[in-house]
Amino acid sequence: MGLIVQKFGGSSVRDAERINNVAGIVTGAYMQGNSVVVVVSAQGDTTDDLIEKAAEINPKASKREMDMLLAAGEQMSSALLAMAIERLGFPVISLTGWQAGFLTHSTHGAARIRSIDGERIRKELDSNQIVVVAGFQGVDRFDDITTLGRGGSDTSAVALAAELRADVCKIYTDVDGVYTADPRFVKGAVKLEEITYDEMLELASLGANVLHNRSVEMAKRYHVTLEVLSSLEQKPGTLVKEAVKVEKLLIKGVAKDENVARIAVIGLPDTPGIAFKIFSLLASRKINVDIILQSIGRHNTKDISFTVPLSDKDSALELLHEKFDVIGAERIEADDNVVKVSIVGAGMQSNPGVAAKMFEALYDANINIQMISTSEIKISVLIDRKDGNRALTAVHDAFDFNAGK
Amino acid sequence: MGLIVQKFGGSSVRDAERINNVAGIVTGAYMQGNSVVVVVSAQGDTTDDLIEKAAEINPKASKREMDMLLAAGEQMSSALLAMAIERLGFPVISLTGWQAGFLTHSTHGAARIRSIDGERIRKELDSNQIVVVAGFQGVDRFDDITTLGRGGSDTSAVALAAELRADVCKIYTDVDGVYTADPRFVKGAVKLEEITYDEMLELASLGANVLHNRSVEMAKRYHVTLEVLSSLEQKPGTLVKEAVKVEKLLIKGVAKDENVARIAVIGLPDTPGIAFKIFSLLASRKINVDIILQSIGRHNTKDISFTVPLSDKDSALELLHEKFDVIGAERIEADDNVVKVSIVGAGMQSNPGVAAKMFEALYDANINIQMISTSEIKISVLIDRKDGNRALTAVHDAFDFNAGK
Repeated sequence: MGLIVQKFGGSSVRDAERINNVAGIVTGAYMQGNSVVVVVSAQGDTTDDLIEKAAEINPKASKREMDMLLAAGEQMSSALLAMAIERLGFPVISLTGWQAGFLTHSTHGAARIRSIDGERIRKELDSNQIVVVAGFQGVDRFDDITTLGRGGSDTSAVALAAELRADVCKIYTDVDGVYTADPRFVKGAVKLEEITYDEMLELASLGANVLHNRSVEMAKRYHVTLEVLSSLEQKPGTLVKEAVKVEKLLIKGVAKDENVARIAVIGLPDTPGIAFKIFSLLASRKINVDIILQSIGRHNTKDISFTVPLSDKDSALELLHEKFDVIGAERIEADDNVVKVSIVGAGMQSNPGVAAKMFEALYDANINIQMISTSEIKISVLIDRKDGNRALTAVHDAFDFNAGK
Repeated sequence: MGLIVQKFGGSSVRDAERINNVAGIVTGAYMQGNSVVVVVSAQGDTTDDLIEKAAEINPKASKREMDMLLAAGEQMSSALLAMAIERLGFPVISLTGWQAGFLTHSTHGAARIRSIDGERIRKELDSNQIVVVAGFQGVDRFDDITTLGRGGSDTSAVALAAELRADVCKIYTDVDGVYTADPRFVKGAVKLEEITYDEMLELASLGANVLHNRSVEMAKRYHVTLEVLSSLEQKPGTLVKEAVKVEKLLIKGVAKDENVARIAVIGLPDTPGIAFKIFSLLASRKINVDIILQSIGRHNTKDISFTVPLSDKDSALELLHEKFDVIGAERIEADDNVVKVSIVGAGMQSNPGVAAKMFEALYDANINIQMISTSEIKISVLIDRKDGNRALTAVHDAFDFNAGK
C-alpha cells in the first residue's frame, strides 16, 4: 500500500485496445490498496499529426499557439483513459496540466516546471479517486498553456512523484526495462534489475532511448525511485535509484548514439586561446561539444576535431564559417558518417582493464576507432557509421553480462 | 469602427483552406479598424469523431469526461485559426473557454453560462490583439471543463457579444442568410434582409436549422444584433434584431420540421382531468408536446392526439405504457410518418386571410392536413411525411415572397 505514480507513453495508449490494457494496469494497482496517479501522453501519432496540421497552415506558427494546439492531445488521451477506467467500475477523474496544478515558466514548447500545486490531486486522492493527469503540459503565470517539450510526460510524472512524495514512479514503455545494449541490435543483451541515476543519465544521453535525461536528473535531485517497465507484459522492470545492490556487473550497458557528427577545423595557427575561441563560440549557441581531439597539422599548424549532435551540425558549421576569419583556419570539414559507441558503468575508472577490453574487441572485429573519450563512468569511441551495430555486438560480447545476473 | 464578435461553425474551419479563408474574413474586419473577437467551433467532424472514439472505449462514459474530451476540439481549431491569422501578419491570441472567462453551471454536456469574466479578453483587445475564443465550452466553479451542448458555439458568441457590448454578433455559416424557406427544397426561396428575434425563434424551432434557439433567446434578452451570413461569399446576410424595417412581407418564412411524431391515446374515459394527467406525465420527463387534438371516440370515450419531437417518441410511449392503467385508455398509437410545415410572420393573427391561403394551397396540391396549430406568429400543419417537400413549395408559392423584397 502506498502512493504510486504511473506514466504511460503514446504507444501505450495508441488505440482503444491499448487504453483498455492500461486501464487494467491502473486499476490493478488501485485494487492492491494503492493511491494511484496516472500521467499519460497523447495517443500514438496525435502530436505528430497536430504538428503536421499546423505546418500546413503556418510553418512558422508561434510556439504559444503550438502549445495551445498540442496540449489538446494529452487532454484527449487522459479523458479517454478515464473513460476506460470508469467502464471497469472504478472512481476516476482526469485533469489537464493546469487543473493538476502544473505551473511552468513561459518558454513555450520547452517550459520548465516552476512548481506544482498538488492540492486538487490530493483532494481527489483523499476521496479515493484514481487521478489521470495530462502529461507534458502546464500553465504559466499568465494562464497561458505551455508544454514541456518532447519527452515532457516523463518529467511531468517524476515532478508529480516528487511533489506527492510517491513511493515509486513507474514509467511504462514498450520495452520491459533497461538493457545492457539495445536488444533490437544485440542478441545477448540482458535486462538490468537496477541501475543508478548517473549510469542511466549516461545511457540516455548516449542514445539508449529509454528515459529522457530531464526526468532522470529530476528523479536524482528529488530522490524519486523510478521503475522502467513494459505496459504489455506483467513482469518487473528496471529500478533506477541512488544506491544499487552490489553486483558483479561492472559495466551496465553498451549504447550506440547516431545523433552525432564530427567537425574538423584544419590548419589553425598554433597560438594559445584558439580552442577557447571555437568552443565559446559554439557554447554561445548552446551547441554541446562532446569528444574533442587536438592534433598537430602540417606547417606548424594544428587541427581540432570534435563531435556535436547531428541535429546541430548545420548551425555549428554556419557559425564557424561566419567567424572563419577570426578563427584563422585553413578549412573546415564535417563528417556525419559516424556513430558513437559507449560502455557505461560506475567505478569503471578504477579498473583500467575495461578500456583495453573494449578496444581489443573492436580491433578483433576490424573496426577502426576515430576518436575516444572517457569519463568516470563511461568510455566512448567514434567509429564509422556502417560499423555501428557490429561494434555494439562485439563490445557487448566482450563483457560477460549474463554472468552478472 | 466598433467591436465585432464573429462566430464560425465547424464546416467553416473544416480544413486548412477553409481556415485560411476565415483568417481572411477576420483580418478584413480588423483592417477596417474594428476590434475583433472570433468564436470558433471544432473543425468539421472532430466532435463526432471524438464521440465515436469515446463510445468505442466506454459507451456510458460520464459526461464530465466527455466534456474533457470534446473541449479539446475547439481548443485545437482556435489554435489553428490563430496560426493562420499569424501567418497573415496580424497580432492574435487564442483562448480556451476557461481562459476567456466562461464560468458555467456544472451540468456537463449542456452547461448554462453563469457569467463571463471579460477581463482577459478586454486586456488583449486593448493591446490590439485579435482574440480567438474556443466556443462551446467553459469551466464550472470546481475548475472542471464543461461544454454548452450542441450548437453551443452560437451561444458562446452571443454571450460574449452581450458581455463585451459588441456592436454586432456575426454568425458565419454555410448558408448566406435566413430564407423564406429551405432553398434546398423550395426553388423560389428568398433571402430575408431582416427578421425579428421572435420570428427567428419560431423558424429555428420549426427546423429552419440556421441558428440555435438558445442563442437567439439570449440575443433577444441582451439586445444583441445578430447577422447570419456566409463564410464563403462576401455579401450581406440576414439581420436578426428587435425592430425590423416595415416591409410588405407579412410572412417571413415557410419551414418544415421532420423531428416530429404523432401519438394518439385512444378510448379514454370521458372524465375531467384526463388530458391534465397525460400532459403532466410527459412534462415530468421534459417532453415537449406541440399540436394537441382532442376528439370524441366511440362509446362515450374520447381520443387525444398530440405531437412530440421524434427523438422523444420512444420515451413518451414507454412512459404512457407504464401508466397505462392510471390513464385508462383502450390503446396507444404512434405515427412517425408525419412532418410539420409552418408559416411564420409577426402580425399574422390580425390577418385571417393568411391561414385560409395556406390551407387552400395545400388543398390545391391535394395534401391532407392531419392537425393544425396556430400562435401569434405562426401556423403549423401536420401532414404525411411524403408530402413534406411538395407542401413546402406549394405554401411558399402561395405567398408572394419576391414582392416583399
